[in-house]
Amino acid sequence: MTVRQTTLDNGMVVLTDDMPHLESASLGVWVRAGARSERKSEHGVSHLLEHMAFKGTASRSALNIAESIENVGGDLNAATSIEHTGYFARVLKDDVVLAADILADILQNSVFDENELEREKHVIEQEIGAARDNPDDHVFDLFQAAAFPDQPIGRTILGTVDSVSEFTPDVIRKYMRRNYVGDHMTMAAAGNVDHDELVRVAGERFSDLKPNGAPAPQRAEYKGGEERLVSDHEQAHIVLGFEGRAYNSDGFYAAQILASILGGGMSSRLFQEVREKRGLCYSVYAFHWAFADSGVFGVAAATGEDEVGDLVPVVVEELRRATQTITDEEVVRVRNQIRAGLLMSLESPSARAGQIARQQILWGRPIPLQETVERIGRITAQRVKDIAEQIFSTGDISLAGIGPISGLPDASSIGKTLKR
Amino acid sequence: MTVRQTTLDNGMVVLTDDMPHLESASLGVWVRAGARSERKSEHGVSHLLEHMAFKGTASRSALNIAESIENVGGDLNAATSIEHTGYFARVLKDDVVLAADILADILQNSVFDENELEREKHVIEQEIGAARDNPDDHVFDLFQAAAFPDQPIGRTILGTVDSVSEFTPDVIRKYMRRNYVGDHMTMAAAGNVDHDELVRVAGERFSDLKPNGAPAPQRAEYKGGEERLVSDHEQAHIVLGFEGRAYNSDGFYAAQILASILGGGMSSRLFQEVREKRGLCYSVYAFHWAFADSGVFGVAAATGEDEVGDLVPVVVEELRRATQTITDEEVVRVRNQIRAGLLMSLESPSARAGQIARQQILWGRPIPLQETVERIGRITAQRVKDIAEQIFSTGDISLAGIGPISGLPDASSIGKTLKR
Repeated sequence: MTVRQTTLDNGMVVLTDDMPHLESASLGVWVRAGARSERKSEHGVSHLLEHMAFKGTASRSALNIAESIENVGGDLNAATSIEHTGYFARVLKDDVVLAADILADILQNSVFDENELEREKHVIEQEIGAARDNPDDHVFDLFQAAAFPDQPIGRTILGTVDSVSEFTPDVIRKYMRRNYVGDHMTMAAAGNVDHDELVRVAGERFSDLKPNGAPAPQRAEYKGGEERLVSDHEQAHIVLGFEGRAYNSDGFYAAQILASILGGGMSSRLFQEVREKRGLCYSVYAFHWAFADSGVFGVAAATGEDEVGDLVPVVVEELRRATQTITDEEVVRVRNQIRAGLLMSLESPSARAGQIARQQILWGRPIPLQETVERIGRITAQRVKDIAEQIFSTGDISLAGIGPISGLPDASSIGKTLKR
Repeated sequence: MTVRQTTLDNGMVVLTDDMPHLESASLGVWVRAGARSERKSEHGVSHLLEHMAFKGTASRSALNIAESIENVGGDLNAATSIEHTGYFARVLKDDVVLAADILADILQNSVFDENELEREKHVIEQEIGAARDNPDDHVFDLFQAAAFPDQPIGRTILGTVDSVSEFTPDVIRKYMRRNYVGDHMTMAAAGNVDHDELVRVAGERFSDLKPNGAPAPQRAEYKGGEERLVSDHEQAHIVLGFEGRAYNSDGFYAAQILASILGGGMSSRLFQEVREKRGLCYSVYAFHWAFADSGVFGVAAATGEDEVGDLVPVVVEELRRATQTITDEEVVRVRNQIRAGLLMSLESPSARAGQIARQQILWGRPIPLQETVERIGRITAQRVKDIAEQIFSTGDISLAGIGPISGLPDASSIGKTLKR
């Protein structure tokens, strides 16, 4: 374990994993705020802020920000998710301080100029259009809405054209002041970095940050339901799911293993049954996404109009079989996959920085590889069957479909088939 | 330069870049054959073969292939492009020989069972539907067809539902015997690998390979033209392009630099002008794809129906400006970006294995980083302006659009605006 951790006076945690044999480093700041931190009148502001952070500070124009990092061959990026927002740079080792300086500037001194804001609203309008034109993405927005109706956690990250058009610089500033506080922010760096130097730089540059104050987001309440969008796509794009398990819950690791066994690779049950034995799909997989207080477990697939009616019963039968027939062999395979994946992530500065930041945010500290391997090692086949039974038998299905989906059964009939 | 290279008796080149500090390795076999190697009656067979290679050999079932690699936490993947087909594995260091063994088996001993083939045709039918449902992908198929009409290099990689439905095991075998020959194949590995051991294993396991015989594909003849598909997407998805430069041609590096300056990052001209100053697009970028005997240079963007008419003149004006106004500063920035990108790729086994394989295939040997940096360093701003002038002033535009594109001008009128 080479990770070092320091908490600054303002509450921000700085984590580094030094890989001294590398020429580069990946550095980012992760904020514990995302779409679900938004109030009703703020739908889309987390993502708008993430864009506006690149549009100019008191001392740098948008072009200066882009050129400062790209002139030295680095790049700068950001992403907003349901619970987090991340700002990252990948640079050569001599430019780590520059990257930290830019991140500190855009996260404390952005000006949110009105003209820039108006233009950026148009950019986001285009981004919303692009997301709606990609049914594989769009169906997940519908799925999240079906799972968590009328709650911030169930709303789209991008917002709507209407909601985004309403925002003023002041709305962004208020959201930022409330959520971008020191003890909700983690800086993580992996690669050729010096921990003490980064702590010194972060301490100096993030001195304007308020130490605390962010309110907790509204508690998630999984409900389930369905969202359908009939369209003339070639394929029916379908996501079928259930309530999953929160990060800190007992069932988290078992649910992760279940998702891999069901649909995590070429040897997974769904790939073998749906694609290899029946040729029903090109893409079919299972996923488990955990949140702080809930989660979703689901299966995503796309197939032709004529095949929808065949696909759903086959998937449902695999879910049912999983409650009875998970083998030790399968659990060992997934264990090996997780271990290998962790070892490989240690070799990628970007993956590693994201991983230690996420662990710190979710569990309060970076988790040593050996500890994760041991936790996973304690999950038995019986435990995976039990979690499958618990997840699939509630009857509260979330179902989303886009395309020629007239053959898609309704959520309640699927729920009845699976209910104990 | 840590890369070692050995040519086997059958003509296959084995390359390794040993990174002894890693726990993993990436290993692949790249075949110099892809969509453009197909005869008229073979449209889609390169990609079908890439799928069928995972469907069973004389000694392994499809499930065995998947389990052999996933049981040890590795994964196996493949991809077909216009000129190449690659089969790759990512594994922990102790499993490199296993991965080489599986690759050798699927590339020499696949049985192409009739029942498996029929099922896999259905999978590919689904994959074709999925590609058509993603307008950002689909528009590139149309673009390639506009640039190279009625030629193998202009056809889709996936084939059509009709063409794929016709194939028999024998068609696949004939294509494979013709194209999968030793001197058209390169094995490359990066990570914790032992060159001598890999050469020994590859020599033993690839002993059934015919050394040579693949015919050259039909010469590419860039023509230009347009392909339009009016649909009710939210956005107009547009690709506008020109003939680019072949890998071995004089203008290759200058064209690469031009693409970066025009649309390679946040500080690029198109990003600044189209997105930052005007808010017309979420995504806009330039690209240069080189082939063995031709290339395409283009700009891809997506925007709303009302904005199409504004977008195209702005892009065209940037192309015209590039022929006059490229600065030394911009060339230096791109040089730094390329150098940093190369240094970072040295740190990723997957990126590195792909890079040395590509270099060996295109230039006959892996190119030391310093050599690439020097070649790039000799390209002046004047040279980039000259190549822009040469590329943009021919008048032979290729144009593809999907969505609400009634406001999209026709290719010939754009061509006239740019013609010298």
